Amino acid sequence: MLQFTIEHTDPSGARAGRVVVRGRAFDTPAFLPVATQASVKALTQRELTDLGAQIVLGNAYHLYLRPGLEVIRKAGGLAAFMAWSGATLTDSGGYQVFSLAPLIEVSEEGVTFRSHIDGAEHFLTPEAAVEVQHEIGADIIMAFDQPVGYPADPAAASEATERSDRWAARCAAAHQGASDQALFGIVQGGFDAGLRRDSAARLSGLPFEGFAIGGLSVGEPKDLTFDLAARTAALLPRERPRYLMGVGTPSDIIRAVACGIDIFDCVLPTRLGRNGTAYTRTGKINLKNSRYQDDLAPLDPGCRCEICATYSRAYLRHLYKCGEILAARALSYHNVHLYLRLMEEIREAIRAGRYREFAAEMLAQRIENG
Amino acid sequence: MLQFTIEHTDPSGARAGRVVVRGRAFDTPAFLPVATQASVKALTQRELTDLGAQIVLGNAYHLYLRPGLEVIRKAGGLAAFMAWSGATLTDSGGYQVFSLAPLIEVSEEGVTFRSHIDGAEHFLTPEAAVEVQHEIGADIIMAFDQPVGYPADPAAASEATERSDRWAARCAAAHQGASDQALFGIVQGGFDAGLRRDSAARLSGLPFEGFAIGGLSVGEPKDLTFDLAARTAALLPRERPRYLMGVGTPSDIIRAVACGIDIFDCVLPTRLGRNGTAYTRTGKINLKNSRYQDDLAPLDPGCRCEICATYSRAYLRHLYKCGEILAARALSYHNVHLYLRLMEEIREAIRAGRYREFAAEMLAQRIENG
Repeated sequence: MLQFTIEHTDPSGARAGRVVVRGRAFDTPAFLPVATQASVKALTQRELTDLGAQIVLGNAYHLYLRPGLEVIRKAGGLAAFMAWSGATLTDSGGYQVFSLAPLIEVSEEGVTFRSHIDGAEHFLTPEAAVEVQHEIGADIIMAFDQPVGYPADPAAASEATERSDRWAARCAAAHQGASDQALFGIVQGGFDAGLRRDSAARLSGLPFEGFAIGGLSVGEPKDLTFDLAARTAALLPRERPRYLMGVGTPSDIIRAVACGIDIFDCVLPTRLGRNGTAYTRTGKINLKNSRYQDDLAPLDPGCRCEICATYSRAYLRHLYKCGEILAARALSYHNVHLYLRLMEEIREAIRAGRYREFAAEMLAQRIENG
Repeated sequence: MLQFTIEHTDPSGARAGRVVVRGRAFDTPAFLPVATQASVKALTQRELTDLGAQIVLGNAYHLYLRPGLEVIRKAGGLAAFMAWSGATLTDSGGYQVFSLAPLIEVSEEGVTFRSHIDGAEHFLTPEAAVEVQHEIGADIIMAFDQPVGYPADPAAASEATERSDRWAARCAAAHQGASDQALFGIVQGGFDAGLRRDSAARLSGLPFEGFAIGGLSVGEPKDLTFDLAARTAALLPRERPRYLMGVGTPSDIIRAVACGIDIFDCVLPTRLGRNGTAYTRTGKINLKNSRYQDDLAPLDPGCRCEICATYSRAYLRHLYKCGEILAARALSYHNVHLYLRLMEEIREAIRAGRYREFAAEMLAQRIENG
């Protein structure tokens, strides 16, 4: 059972609240650092706790293939396996099956695919995807869906969306009474407002404890992303948490919060960190740029994280150029710090009823730079 | 000026003491984690301090090529550049020039080589190697030497050793009066006790503040290593610190301390850590081994480090198999912890006058396993 308390609603539509699920709590709007394979890349669980992360996201597709369910079950579930004391959420693997694994066949019953690791054939149904997530044991689990790529052929988008929604109903049925985990449905519909409306309507009628908006931020123009996110969010049950999957940059999150989104996840802070890019208050800086060669300033002069208190851009650039692991660690840490501080500021602005002004100010600072 | 106080000498010949150089102190026997490129791979400087590291080793060859002297000078020297508050030592780069860089010409004057990074041609003399290390600014710097590989041709070994010793005299002359850094000489001599004796005698007559034994642990049998280390150490000034370069495994260090060695450095704890190998009290374990797949025990049940208090072998093996950075971090941290605890135990055993018993016990536990 998941409890969601909306403590403040801002004139913009942004909401601030709190989710409690199986005794673990997180504040919303929340950002979930991504621990695809049971590790937020380059960081320790203790660092994540120190940075204020309250929930992380694992991926059922990856964890099912490696290390496999038996090891995770023996360890006592995902959180125990990775020694994480906060809340956990697993994505069902729908996105990965359709994007990462070589597909063999998609039928009404389910999907046959090959493991991207060893090529072994697997067959996954919506019921099996829920069962896998029961075994992995995250606090929040996701329905098994079939996303649509961008641009989308209208007939294919319609077919995939309708099938996703039928799969959602099968997931809900498989979950009912079987676990105290919270199951979220995922609205699809490609880039068609009508398909999304239909999908939101169908899913709203199912016993989900939260609703995700999937299949956005996959290459479409940003204005389309936020138009569809806002329209879809408005159709979802007000009293349930809304999760915009895979979004996004700090600017994306600032915009999406005004659409009434409560939960976000994204690999960007750690992926860009590994690639030498640091987020700052005013946008991104890329340490590959030779201007930082002898720059003794911290990554972000306004930042209070341990990295900015300790190391210079010149040193971190040197580490990046040398391929030193400390570069990935330092930039990932700093970027996740920035994301989690941003979420705190977002929640404060909502509580103060000044989210619109806050968002305008922040977006103006960041310009076109992330 | 370097002060070396020998506080205890054990019946075995092992010594425990303290080095103070430019206001920074470290206890001996000391182990230096290796920060070749101004970073101990996978670890932060704060972690090193928390683990009890008092001094780290950088490499003049690497730092001269990248980031270059100008950046390091502008940052205020190596320690300031890397934000390290302990002591620092740089190797001269002799070993790297002769092992890593494509050599062009070796003459009495110096060495012409190509950068292993961009192929650019560089000419390095003993005087220049000292000057480079003055710029880098470590507390302890090393003479520029020409090591001999194993096995060694007698004539070539003799020629290289005599040239190394002439270069050592030129390094001492270039250093005299030019810096408050402490310059160490490096005894060479290949695998010939006579050559090593001659080299030790020549170097002992020069104004070095410490003496290294170089060119060992490069593939020769272990008994030869320790025979030559012991013979050479015995010929070096008693009151100056003795440094066995590039050594070694925990067992190697335990043996070499009994030869009267005070200082060690080695890449093994971090290199093996990145390769999935953890040192334990009783030897090494390699997480690649499938027996650890569902092993919920810590890396080393007797270890008190944060990694062993937090993560299981099964989890760390999973991270290693997935190529997660946290695997490298965790194993490097654990291994450096083990090395630094070992050095503490070594110093305690010497202070208690029971080093021989301690060494016998420890070596019996470790058997042939590191």
